[in-house]
Amino acid sequence: MLKLDFSKSPDGLIPAIAQDYKTNEILMLAYINEESWNETLKSGAATYWSRSRKKLWKKGESSGHVQEVKAIFFDCDNDTVIFKVNQIGGAACHEGYKSCFFRQYNPKTREVSVIGERVFDPAKVYNN
Amino acid sequence: MLKLDFSKSPDGLIPAIAQDYKTNEILMLAYINEESWNETLKSGAATYWSRSRKKLWKKGESSGHVQEVKAIFFDCDNDTVIFKVNQIGGAACHEGYKSCFFRQYNPKTREVSVIGERVFDPAKVYNN
Repeated sequence: MLKLDFSKSPDGLIPAIAQDYKTNEILMLAYINEESWNETLKSGAATYWSRSRKKLWKKGESSGHVQEVKAIFFDCDNDTVIFKVNQIGGAACHEGYKSCFFRQYNPKTREVSVIGERVFDPAKVYNN
Repeated sequence: MLKLDFSKSPDGLIPAIAQDYKTNEILMLAYINEESWNETLKSGAATYWSRSRKKLWKKGESSGHVQEVKAIFFDCDNDTVIFKVNQIGGAACHEGYKSCFFRQYNPKTREVSVIGERVFDPAKVYNN
């Protein structure tokens, strides 16, 4: 039985990369602790640890845009995982883009430009 | 001019995901601080911060398997980057695999199985 190594980071968190299971597009990176790892395994839906809210964070709990985990990969050091997911709703980013990595950085100008695809208007999804 | 936010992690490091610029395969995840970020921009070769050696780490400095950075993406919080790279030598992992994520985790058995492609024998590359 192989275990993830949560000991290397000062805060006991390791990164989890959510990747589209069909296209291999990287959707987002968030963090997991042991509790969220176990919850992900139990529920089959990607569950992270929110560093800002300091609590368990089932992705999509407010938007309905959950991530069904289709496959899990460990890196060689057992301190990073990939969740290959089916992103319900088509957008992982709370700003409405398919991927959180929707901006490309230009090393010459030191500016970013939006290259990603916007799937929804966040105001309509998150407002009450 | 947009800046990365190195302040959220207790150790001042943010994750950088190296992704094959042609196939979108995730090759590895390592960490950068401001110094390694600047060095990456200057040299055009992915340069990380080694948490174990506590020093700047130009990927491939010992093996010759450097990563030419073809494009850079920021996430929505400016605290994670993707380096889309051309991996010289074809393998990012020090264990000789194309990707460090060469093992798939089976949630039922809690075991991993090797699914990745081995490109070189590490003993031949790193031994003196």
